[in-house]
Amino acid sequence: MCRFGKFPQLSVQDLGWPVVKAAVRDAGIEPRQIQSAYVGSAYGGRLVGQRILRPLGLLGLPVVNCENACSSGGTAFREAWHAISQGQWDCALVVGIDKLTSLGGGVLPGQPDDWDVNVGLTMPALYAMRAGRYMHEHKISGHDLAKVAVKAHKHGALNPLAQFQNEITIEDVARARPVADPFTLLHCCPTGDGAAALVLVSEAKAREIGLAKPVWVVASELNSGRYVTGFRDMTTPEITTRGAEEIWEMSGMGPDDIDVAEVHDAFTIAELLYYEAFGFCGRGEAIALLESGATSLGGRIPVNPSGGLLCRGHPVGATGAAQLAELTFQLRGTAGKRQVEGAKVALAHCTGGGIAGLDHGACSINILST
Amino acid sequence: MCRFGKFPQLSVQDLGWPVVKAAVRDAGIEPRQIQSAYVGSAYGGRLVGQRILRPLGLLGLPVVNCENACSSGGTAFREAWHAISQGQWDCALVVGIDKLTSLGGGVLPGQPDDWDVNVGLTMPALYAMRAGRYMHEHKISGHDLAKVAVKAHKHGALNPLAQFQNEITIEDVARARPVADPFTLLHCCPTGDGAAALVLVSEAKAREIGLAKPVWVVASELNSGRYVTGFRDMTTPEITTRGAEEIWEMSGMGPDDIDVAEVHDAFTIAELLYYEAFGFCGRGEAIALLESGATSLGGRIPVNPSGGLLCRGHPVGATGAAQLAELTFQLRGTAGKRQVEGAKVALAHCTGGGIAGLDHGACSINILST
Repeated sequence: MCRFGKFPQLSVQDLGWPVVKAAVRDAGIEPRQIQSAYVGSAYGGRLVGQRILRPLGLLGLPVVNCENACSSGGTAFREAWHAISQGQWDCALVVGIDKLTSLGGGVLPGQPDDWDVNVGLTMPALYAMRAGRYMHEHKISGHDLAKVAVKAHKHGALNPLAQFQNEITIEDVARARPVADPFTLLHCCPTGDGAAALVLVSEAKAREIGLAKPVWVVASELNSGRYVTGFRDMTTPEITTRGAEEIWEMSGMGPDDIDVAEVHDAFTIAELLYYEAFGFCGRGEAIALLESGATSLGGRIPVNPSGGLLCRGHPVGATGAAQLAELTFQLRGTAGKRQVEGAKVALAHCTGGGIAGLDHGACSINILST
Repeated sequence: MCRFGKFPQLSVQDLGWPVVKAAVRDAGIEPRQIQSAYVGSAYGGRLVGQRILRPLGLLGLPVVNCENACSSGGTAFREAWHAISQGQWDCALVVGIDKLTSLGGGVLPGQPDDWDVNVGLTMPALYAMRAGRYMHEHKISGHDLAKVAVKAHKHGALNPLAQFQNEITIEDVARARPVADPFTLLHCCPTGDGAAALVLVSEAKAREIGLAKPVWVVASELNSGRYVTGFRDMTTPEITTRGAEEIWEMSGMGPDDIDVAEVHDAFTIAELLYYEAFGFCGRGEAIALLESGATSLGGRIPVNPSGGLLCRGHPVGATGAAQLAELTFQLRGTAGKRQVEGAKVALAHCTGGGIAGLDHGACSINILST
């Protein structure tokens, strides 16, 4: 993956093709061994995959451009995994990409029939309400919430690919520009540009090319649902909760089996809700889990070692692929200063919605292992 | 499918859900038997599938939104077919949809880095150049080209789902508003709105639900390529020619096995190029084939009995699904006045490109049989 950031001068193809080239080189394959490409993007425009592959001379392949809002990259990965695991291909390319600085107007625009958004229920407002409810129910403060951002930046400061690479304090979070109470700017993930790519191969192909440290896909889940009115309550992320149940069933694993996770921390409150949705702790115990250090590097279950959406950045369609790239680095033991020692099983989670149809969502969850 | 046309007052979800409901009812299944949805759209915006499925209470399923310009619907179909044929699902929904009257500005917009488009090489201009070259090489006239439009409208006049349902004469074509020499307006497909949906099931599921006249998928092809500079010459549609070779190899069939075809006649010249690309006739013989009546209803290989893009209409992402719906009607023998008698094998072809990246394309080809 490339370093995430703001690159308004680059076209989507100029952002994407070097990342694909790096992934192919990293996999140790010849480009011509790739049989198909699955490209996740929410704002890349028509034929985004074709535009990325062309400078590499890779055009000609079947290309499936997948859109599922923030889960676009995860969806592309899952389509590739299904196709390979079921024998359609031996080798496929997955790309996640978006360029929010020049496409989508730099923000996530509503559409005329997004009634909720147009009366003010934007993404930050929605998550701020959920944060307010959670704070009320579980007697935590905005000060407590800020600890999620502090952890994200502590991790991100160790990640040369993160959009921000600076540590911050709780006071920095409190003093940042207000966005939607209780959120300041540092409670919210940034917009930006980025791309990540992965090469997926079958077990036979992995042996054939002699991969030294293959990373395996244990299970892959995709669902859809209602993003606002689907809430059982404001503090239960319905599609993630359902997705978690399904991925545990599919994988035969449970929260205790996960050594490292990348979850969709678009806002500080979100990471806490996902700790609980995945069963890393019980309901209402997320702040205690965070404060214990369990989800920090060196803890029992480090979450978002990359810096997460809050610090690594969140170019919508790129995020799912970037999470999987990060976890691949972690499982290979090549994550440098942010390495989770001995990580053998990893979980990636992205959940999208609220863009051009606030009340519709998609959730993608993948488990990888050494 | 719905009748294609201009429905600016409808939202994309209001256009889509009745079509899905009709497809599910037609299949004789319960909605809860659907395990996944694949939704092709080029302009539907984020989470288009989720928005269409929600009014039907179908949200919750994995939804994969597929974009491949004019091949978006064909791509969604192929993803569903692969997943079913390889055992992932027993029952999946395919939707193709676009609403050009309200999304995409009613036209196909270029992007700032579409240099070709921005200096004038729009889709009509590109196909007009190809028409000019073909006319020069094979000594045919604009008058001859117009015969494609006349046939399209003769067929479309029999199709209650077509955007236009009127017959036209060669003189009507000649007198229509000039667009790009040699094209008048009637040489070009219209913009418009439309949706089509299909239910795909496994062989076992087809038996279980006791389908009286199942239609089988024989082979499904998707490729990508360069849309302009990829031409070996102006009159060879490269990605279609390559796709045709691949679908014949995959199916073990050849042009003589096809009883009826829907091909991507976005402009009059296009249909002629595709006759030759699929081998329905030799190079330079397309006008003779058309004039012989072979590609008209009642002929040896009727092409575009629906009226094709020129007359049934071309809401970009809907077209691939609409072609497959038409061929399903034909193979079931329920196509009414436009029925191709005794049709047993049918070919659908859509090829996209030239939108937000003129020089990139995708081509989808499917063969169905009784």
